[in-house]
Amino acid sequence: MRWVRFSESGAFKYGLLQGQTIQEVSGDPFAGYQLLNKLYDFSAVKLEVPVVPRTFYCAGLNYAEHALEAARKAGREANLPPKADIGYRANNALIAHDEYVVIPPDAGEKVHYEGELVVVIGKRASHLTEENALSCVLGYTIGNDVSERDWQRADRTLWRAKNSDTFKPMGPWIETDFEIEGARTIVRVNGRVTTEFKTADMIFNCAKFISEMTRYLTLWPGDVIWMGTDGASPNLNDGDLVEVEITGLGVLRNRFIRDKKNA
Amino acid sequence: MRWVRFSESGAFKYGLLQGQTIQEVSGDPFAGYQLLNKLYDFSAVKLEVPVVPRTFYCAGLNYAEHALEAARKAGREANLPPKADIGYRANNALIAHDEYVVIPPDAGEKVHYEGELVVVIGKRASHLTEENALSCVLGYTIGNDVSERDWQRADRTLWRAKNSDTFKPMGPWIETDFEIEGARTIVRVNGRVTTEFKTADMIFNCAKFISEMTRYLTLWPGDVIWMGTDGASPNLNDGDLVEVEITGLGVLRNRFIRDKKNA
Repeated sequence: MRWVRFSESGAFKYGLLQGQTIQEVSGDPFAGYQLLNKLYDFSAVKLEVPVVPRTFYCAGLNYAEHALEAARKAGREANLPPKADIGYRANNALIAHDEYVVIPPDAGEKVHYEGELVVVIGKRASHLTEENALSCVLGYTIGNDVSERDWQRADRTLWRAKNSDTFKPMGPWIETDFEIEGARTIVRVNGRVTTEFKTADMIFNCAKFISEMTRYLTLWPGDVIWMGTDGASPNLNDGDLVEVEITGLGVLRNRFIRDKKNA
Repeated sequence: MRWVRFSESGAFKYGLLQGQTIQEVSGDPFAGYQLLNKLYDFSAVKLEVPVVPRTFYCAGLNYAEHALEAARKAGREANLPPKADIGYRANNALIAHDEYVVIPPDAGEKVHYEGELVVVIGKRASHLTEENALSCVLGYTIGNDVSERDWQRADRTLWRAKNSDTFKPMGPWIETDFEIEGARTIVRVNGRVTTEFKTADMIFNCAKFISEMTRYLTLWPGDVIWMGTDGASPNLNDGDLVEVEITGLGVLRNRFIRDKKNA
């Protein structure tokens, strides 16, 4: 099933997508729902982020090549994470499919994409094992962990480097039937492929992260876990269109524009 | 005014506290409310965290003595933050006044409190100046930024060091008329004062943080900003009762217990 969240006349709604048609539901995919006799054309609705999480988790470095690349650029030894320590991102930064990433006027040139698989939690969960970890998962979506690299190096936290408003595109939907084996993450800038990697090539996979996390914390319905990225991004410029595709899941598309107001 | 959030028969409610009496409202302090003719005895209701924030911000190091103490213990130069870089905490860890902080079975001995002033945002805000920054503030509450110091040093992120379930007591209420000038933060363990400092002795004050943050991010109603702590905590043991008082605001009280299930 493919869950979409959309808005109409200021109200937020959930629906199930089949082909190009959305069937609205009452309720939501987390607390329960009933199908309604209301149909919408997918291309006619305003898509919203598929969920605003209670807690927004992010794995950070979780693919070997990306970690090595980051180390090379910083002129230091590669520092592969020895264990699955989860990190965080911030809800203020979330935007939906087709919304604009607005680069702040004082950002440097090194604004980069990071295409990521996103796990969407469906059930409250704690103390899961690696074997039953995925039992709490509702489905998967796509995230673009937009990053300003000068701020990432200079600031004490990742607040504006990764959490400036609009820096966290997520969507377009939640796919409940996604199979990670064989999936590829493909990023295109203005139609040209700039990054491609096997989605499953993680240092710590989804089940490992969930089992480690739930030793100490409770996952709640609607929580999301961004699973990290591989490879490197070119510098993104005003007007660039970035598409993050995960095969079998969908395409998350956002245009980048530079805020020139106070430039 | 003093806002309390409480639960009754499984439903979450907001009310205004006068003396020992809560008057329930419909709605909430963020989107708007109306007084109802329903009164409760404060001591008879189950208090809840005053708000579950959309984004949970935390200043981290923001008092000179605490930063110097942390540096001494780590055997390194004190590293006072050069600018107001905000950090994050996680909603899973929130608990209310009088709920238990449960220390995980494999936590070390260095489990510490950090008594903090908490700013509660009332209005959506961006691009505020230091002069008008406080216009978006609904009021203030108290936080205890419970920390496990071995994990804080060893892990790549602060996830279990600071965000294990129950590690973020917040409450007991939101006070809209709090004046920081002259206020003192006083922490007691089992009735004995162990830390005391001037609440306003911050490196970067609330207005400074809000003005810096809103250059890049939008604050939303219900967001909270934990403003950091001063001094140091003794190691907390099974059964210890910790009270964080901020004069003119209230007392946040939580007992610490050690989970012995898997010890």
